[in-house]
This record gives sequence, C-alpha cells and structure tokens, in this order.
Amino acid sequence: MNYPNGKKPKGKVMKNSTGNGKPDFSNRGMTLEEDINQSNQSYLTEGRAVIHKKPTPVQIVKVDYPKRSAAVIKEAYFKQASTTDYNGIYRGKYIDFEAKETRNKTSFPLANIHEHQVEHMKNVCKQDGICFVLLRFSQLEETYFFPAEKLFQYWDRQNNGGRKSIPYKTIQQEGHFIQLQYHIRVDYLSIIDEMYF
Amino acid sequence: MNYPNGKKPKGKVMKNSTGNGKPDFSNRGMTLEEDINQSNQSYLTEGRAVIHKKPTPVQIVKVDYPKRSAAVIKEAYFKQASTTDYNGIYRGKYIDFEAKETRNKTSFPLANIHEHQVEHMKNVCKQDGICFVLLRFSQLEETYFFPAEKLFQYWDRQNNGGRKSIPYKTIQQEGHFIQLQYHIRVDYLSIIDEMYF
Repeated sequence: MNYPNGKKPKGKVMKNSTGNGKPDFSNRGMTLEEDINQSNQSYLTEGRAVIHKKPTPVQIVKVDYPKRSAAVIKEAYFKQASTTDYNGIYRGKYIDFEAKETRNKTSFPLANIHEHQVEHMKNVCKQDGICFVLLRFSQLEETYFFPAEKLFQYWDRQNNGGRKSIPYKTIQQEGHFIQLQYHIRVDYLSIIDEMYF
Repeated sequence: MNYPNGKKPKGKVMKNSTGNGKPDFSNRGMTLEEDINQSNQSYLTEGRAVIHKKPTPVQIVKVDYPKRSAAVIKEAYFKQASTTDYNGIYRGKYIDFEAKETRNKTSFPLANIHEHQVEHMKNVCKQDGICFVLLRFSQLEETYFFPAEKLFQYWDRQNNGGRKSIPYKTIQQEGHFIQLQYHIRVDYLSIIDEMYF
C-alpha cells in the first residue's frame, strides 16, 4: 500500500482502520483481560463453553460489620495466585490458561509467570487438560495462543541457566496467532478446535 | 454398648472415639471447607487430581500503596459468587462442585444455594462436566455427595412453588454417603470413580 508521503499514517487514523478497508478491532484500548472476559461471556451466552476468570486472591485481615449494612473489608492484601487465572470446560474437556501482556517487542519475559503457576500447568497437563498461555505483545498489537508444553521447555531451560525470555520469533512460529474479531474478540476456542479435536 | 449410668458419655470422650474401638475423624471441629481443602491437597500431592477452591470474590474499592511496602486494600466488599467454589480436573474430566453445611437435621434448605450458582451448574452439565454438591449435616456429622442433576429437580420445583428444601431422607437415598477418613477426609473422588468411570 502506498501512502502519499511514503510513510504510514500515524495516530488516530491507524487506530480505527487497518488501511485495507476492513475494520480494525485491535486498538480500542481494551486490555487482554477485558478481551478474554468478553470472549468468555460470548461463549457462555452461546452455550459453547463455560470458562471464567477466577477472583483475585486476597488475604483478608480485618472486617467491620456495621449494623444494618454490608460487611466492609478494612484491611487486606493481594496474594500471589497459586494457579492460573482462567479455567473451565469446553466440549467435555478441561481448559486452563493464563493470560499475559508484555510491552516488549522482541521477546516474552518469563518473569511474567510464577513458578507455582508453571507447576500448576504441569499438573493440569498430566491430567490430560488443555493448558496454554494467551500472550499479547501490546506494542505490536498481536495476540498468540502458546501451548503450555512449549512454555515448559523454555521455563525448564531458564531454570538450568538458559535465557529468561521466549523470543518473539519462536512465539510466532510455535504459537498460533489470534486475529482479533468483533463478535468474539479473542477466539481462542477456534485454535483449540484445530489443535485438539 | 452399655454405659455405667445408662447414658452416653458427653463431651471430650465422644469427640475422640466412636465407642466401637475405631478412630473417629468426624468430630474434630474441622469445617467441611477445611476437610475438602485437605482432601484436594492430598489428591494433588498424589497426582490424582488437580482441584482447587476459588478465591473469595471481593470488590476492591480503595487501595493504598505505601512506599517500600505491599499495597494495602483499605476498602472492599464481599461479592456473591457467580459460580461454584471448587473446580478442576480428574481423569481428564472437568469437575465442578459446591460445598454446603447445614445445622438442620431433617432437610437441606435450598436458600443455601444461589440462583446463579445453579445456572452455572446447569451450564457445566450441558458441557458434560461432572457436577455435584457436597452436603454436610453438621449436627448429624454426615457428609453426602449429591449429583447436580438431582439438585436441579428440587430447585426447579421450588421455583414452581414446591418445597424450599431437600428432605434428609432424599439425600440419604439419592445421594452418596461419604465416610470420613483420616488420609483423605472427604474422599469424593471415590464416589466419582463408582458413578462415572
């Protein structure tokens, strides 16, 4: 495509159009979490799958019980999650995944994921569940489905002194690009259909 | 068994013994939730299943970020759960359940369960998941596995003007009594083995 000045236009124009006449849903300021919640809600409404985000784990320390009104939590702390954020059921199979965004453009830093989350994912794989990570390169506006088994390879190598990130090229090659859509923004079940059924 | 004064002894003695020479694990002041968490931990350690309790859903309103220390939640409220408390995977199958205790001796009041939890359980059943309720009659010290499909019958009848509880006798007959054990206190997977495999 040729632009008048030989450069791609910047800013608002690109944000609302891909330049190919098709609408662009990739850059409306929605986070990956919002996109996934919207997708899960669509799946649920259509009776296609039952997948939910787990509540944020919180350590509650102090609760007030005022008369005639709801209990108020007055002191609490965020706890580190011991499992992944999302799980549920699809076509009879157990689904379990974590979602992560990075602003990095060349690799996905493994520091985004915790040891016990990887442990959990390994346990799920042993039980024959479908387990993966949804990775978004927010600066590139690209979202990938990356199977947990491939994550483990990099994780275990890191623990043996290997690199602390997964190269973007690897994710492109070994993961599955998810084209954002309007109706179901991050349609990861269509990837699962291809891979597992 | 005869007691010297013709009455059953009360208090500590009964709490630690069933009177038949076998150890009694039913009355150590553990809640059903504690028993289930202990069982899930054993299942996980043995590689038998991956089943976790979801965190309590909390609506966070105000968070302080003190310098050099962890964020403190200063105002938050309990939210009603939109799903069940427990889910996970066992032998490749999706497992989903709710756990409830009642002090009632003759029936289980349906008010213990919320409409959207039942909706969630119905959705899970449609997806071919294994879905049930663990019910404990705490005064009777009895715990039952009660399949979700049977719960729905009573739930739907209640919504059509039927009784607001499930009779204890029904739970005895249509549910599965779970004998408390030491190693895995509430071994509900053994019931699942019988029923589904």
